[in-house]
Amino acid sequence: MNQTIMQVVPVTFTYPVHFTEHLFEPQQALLRDTLAGPGPSGDHAPRVLCVVDDGVLAAFPELAAQIQTYFAAQPGLRLVAPPLGVPGGERCKSDPDVVGRIHEAINAHGIDRHAYVIAVGGGAVLDMVGYAAATAHRGVRLVRVPTTVLSQNDSAVGVKNSVNAFGKKNWLGTFAPPHAVLNDRAFLTTLEDRDWLGGLSEALKVALLKDTAFFDWLEANAAALAARDREAMDHAVYRCAELHLQHISGSGDPFERGSSRPLDFGHWAAHKLESLSGYRLRHGEAVAVGIALDCTYAALNGLLPEAAWRRILNVLRTLGLAVYVPELGTGTQDASDPRSVLSGLNEFREHLGGRLTIPLLTGIGQPVEVHEMDHDLLRRAITVLEDLQAQASSPSVLHLHSQGVL
Amino acid sequence: MNQTIMQVVPVTFTYPVHFTEHLFEPQQALLRDTLAGPGPSGDHAPRVLCVVDDGVLAAFPELAAQIQTYFAAQPGLRLVAPPLGVPGGERCKSDPDVVGRIHEAINAHGIDRHAYVIAVGGGAVLDMVGYAAATAHRGVRLVRVPTTVLSQNDSAVGVKNSVNAFGKKNWLGTFAPPHAVLNDRAFLTTLEDRDWLGGLSEALKVALLKDTAFFDWLEANAAALAARDREAMDHAVYRCAELHLQHISGSGDPFERGSSRPLDFGHWAAHKLESLSGYRLRHGEAVAVGIALDCTYAALNGLLPEAAWRRILNVLRTLGLAVYVPELGTGTQDASDPRSVLSGLNEFREHLGGRLTIPLLTGIGQPVEVHEMDHDLLRRAITVLEDLQAQASSPSVLHLHSQGVL
Repeated sequence: MNQTIMQVVPVTFTYPVHFTEHLFEPQQALLRDTLAGPGPSGDHAPRVLCVVDDGVLAAFPELAAQIQTYFAAQPGLRLVAPPLGVPGGERCKSDPDVVGRIHEAINAHGIDRHAYVIAVGGGAVLDMVGYAAATAHRGVRLVRVPTTVLSQNDSAVGVKNSVNAFGKKNWLGTFAPPHAVLNDRAFLTTLEDRDWLGGLSEALKVALLKDTAFFDWLEANAAALAARDREAMDHAVYRCAELHLQHISGSGDPFERGSSRPLDFGHWAAHKLESLSGYRLRHGEAVAVGIALDCTYAALNGLLPEAAWRRILNVLRTLGLAVYVPELGTGTQDASDPRSVLSGLNEFREHLGGRLTIPLLTGIGQPVEVHEMDHDLLRRAITVLEDLQAQASSPSVLHLHSQGVL
Repeated sequence: MNQTIMQVVPVTFTYPVHFTEHLFEPQQALLRDTLAGPGPSGDHAPRVLCVVDDGVLAAFPELAAQIQTYFAAQPGLRLVAPPLGVPGGERCKSDPDVVGRIHEAINAHGIDRHAYVIAVGGGAVLDMVGYAAATAHRGVRLVRVPTTVLSQNDSAVGVKNSVNAFGKKNWLGTFAPPHAVLNDRAFLTTLEDRDWLGGLSEALKVALLKDTAFFDWLEANAAALAARDREAMDHAVYRCAELHLQHISGSGDPFERGSSRPLDFGHWAAHKLESLSGYRLRHGEAVAVGIALDCTYAALNGLLPEAAWRRILNVLRTLGLAVYVPELGTGTQDASDPRSVLSGLNEFREHLGGRLTIPLLTGIGQPVEVHEMDHDLLRRAITVLEDLQAQASSPSVLHLHSQGVL
């Protein structure tokens, strides 16, 4: 006899994303309150393991001591060890020993599902610590303290974690919502310009996909952002994070079971360029190039009106973001050559699975999905971008027609 | 300025659990239909990687060829390689190289989120392959084909996977619902008696917690089950799986964020006994002892009426399940001695986190939670069980009073 039971498991994940400043100063209640609850409490003060990006420890030499002082004043919490430093940047995701060290610390200090791992750092460190935390005991509580523009407005507010394997970015990972995200804007002040600016490419991306008013605001404030105006950055980070969070909660596919990944605009090229550059190129910088490429492709293709294309490229250039890098030009005669950015199309399809699905724009705030891209047109788009970058053109002369390609 | 966004992510997981027979016979449409959909399909025939427990391959020497023949007849599916054999039993979960081999195969054969890994085997193999599948690309589709009573009625129908680390059972793992579960009763026919019977301890457990009618049925059919009556086993597996599935979907805590784990009746001792025995004792056998221990403790404590205790112990003995093993008796004078089963109480608390929470019974179908257990009373319960086992008493003389302990 054949029988079937259809199992339905509804789950709702809830977590706060706070925007604040000086999280570890003694009088700050936010961190203490975040760790106190909600949720059932154990018999003992919850244990806390703190993992910090070495780059952050170098930029803020007092931070480790400040964290220890903060917890020493909280009788209801138990910092199990001095903050554990880990190498920052994409390379920490490619070294399995680093995940192993986090697991060892979680085990040695008795961190359980009701205890906390606090991860302080850039997106790569948060991805890596997040993976370690999500797999230990099937998930210990993770509090993310992102310290870069890119992680505060994008990667750290979401539900993913990952490390690299088989030479492939994010090959290993899980979907695991954090316990809380604490965005401390004070960490942004010491960023290098390239990281301050690079993170804005995700803000531009989400504005282009979802919010024309936010694009207008970015266009109007691009010069201020490039000049490191902190209030402008506060708004850019908040609105970008908010749009990402709305997308995740409202998409109907937060764990990406489908083929479509609407937020990955410009990302097929970006992932490939990062890898081709040996991660010299940072994610935000690569995304800027990816946006420029896909917008130029769409304009050449007639999908995107040239006026909109010009506005988008102007914003990228006003923000000081490169729209062309040498990795774009290598090996493009053969789309199956792994040194060619074009091979990123198939790698992008493979990672998500199913049919190739690429978001493009028909206008600002008007995404559309396509399932193939013309390689010749992509090569022409790359040439346009190379010329643009070489000319250091003033934004006003960004005309596809003036490039002689339309 | 401080701001907070409260993120809410609703997710609903859906998967079928089928009960069938002869899954890989050429005319069987179930497997083909399971892999065809639902879900967006790629441009190509979905890829399928099949991983099979070595023990199953030994018991069914034709299986590997049968699987290849089945897929050869399906133009819409692409078996990427001959079935990959992996060692079975708990030890496969303790060897990180085995997970690594699954990851390598997933990578080498281009298994993506829209492709399938089929895992055929006992609970340990399904746990281990499930962990590999859940972490590759943040989760490729897993079809579980459990081949033991215990996995068909319990572990394989749920949402967990795991491997062992740091010498601790299930230290690494994730919550990841499968794509489908295919329970093929033909696999049960070649099981050793100890595996046929051991799996029934989970059925007894869930009946004791949730369904007095199912307990009555088990009591009436214990002799038939012990005599390997296949129809009785079909019902026992189906009803046990159904009760587990209902618990997971209706508990409100499918991913176990709270301290309470109501289904883990008898499991604090079971986990420890498995480990103390070096996994000579199988999970179902250990659960039988754990149930006997916690019921005897509750009876000595006055929580559980003696008549109910007698019925439960009678069922265990009619099923031929041991209620005492030598590992119960070692080191019990010191509850912190890791060789003592009593140290399992704290390990159980640590794994789940928070406060110690143990389900006990006040009657059949009447669970209650307690937050501490008296070590002296546990030692007395162990003595009762040791005497019972040594006497090979007929069930009718299972009296606590006759043991002189009440």
